[in-house]
Amino acid sequence: MKGLLLVAHGSRRAQSNEEVALVAKALKIRVHDQYAYTAHAFLELAEPSISQGIDALINQGVTHITILPYFLSAGRHVYEDVPEIVQSKQKLHPEVHITIAPYLGEASEIIDVLAAISNTTQ
Amino acid sequence: MKGLLLVAHGSRRAQSNEEVALVAKALKIRVHDQYAYTAHAFLELAEPSISQGIDALINQGVTHITILPYFLSAGRHVYEDVPEIVQSKQKLHPEVHITIAPYLGEASEIIDVLAAISNTTQ
Repeated sequence: MKGLLLVAHGSRRAQSNEEVALVAKALKIRVHDQYAYTAHAFLELAEPSISQGIDALINQGVTHITILPYFLSAGRHVYEDVPEIVQSKQKLHPEVHITIAPYLGEASEIIDVLAAISNTTQ
Repeated sequence: MKGLLLVAHGSRRAQSNEEVALVAKALKIRVHDQYAYTAHAFLELAEPSISQGIDALINQGVTHITILPYFLSAGRHVYEDVPEIVQSKQKLHPEVHITIAPYLGEASEIIDVLAAISNTTQ
């Protein structure tokens, strides 16, 4: 059984975190044929943490977890912090497959979205 | 004449800033029929600053500037910092029309991009 975990940075501002939860909810509807469970988690400043998010999916019976980094640029968070947390969880749960997907900003479709925004607001 | 300014947060990591420059270059090709000039700028930690980016567009003869916030969530940066800088530039250049477009994370198409990433990496 597959689970998807959208991982964002996390903010001191509750509304920003709530935005991430709403994105995860919308995504859940879009990918429910592929992923039995879709959830969100935060690297820092907010909960659920990545560790808590992974545990919750495993508790639901998920055996294959895809971590989707909701980040625009490949800084330390994408290259070091998220992988470190995921690796430590992977060691605790060797029976579960955990994969980190490319981060959002790496997707070429981002250019399409930016072009669409540009063309509607000039 | 129209100009587009992609505004990112800026990072201490040169590679992250270079990513933004590459996104702006790819976007430029996509919107060149609408915008004579497309450039990028950073809120902090890197140059060109938003102020410098706006000045550069004006120096090119741009009369209508669209600011496109390359941010995923509507925190203080999107709601306060970017608008404040833009407003102060607008006062200095009342003859130029400066508009702030919706920030990237607000675009519903982001869900499509996330779904595409999820479906190719499960």
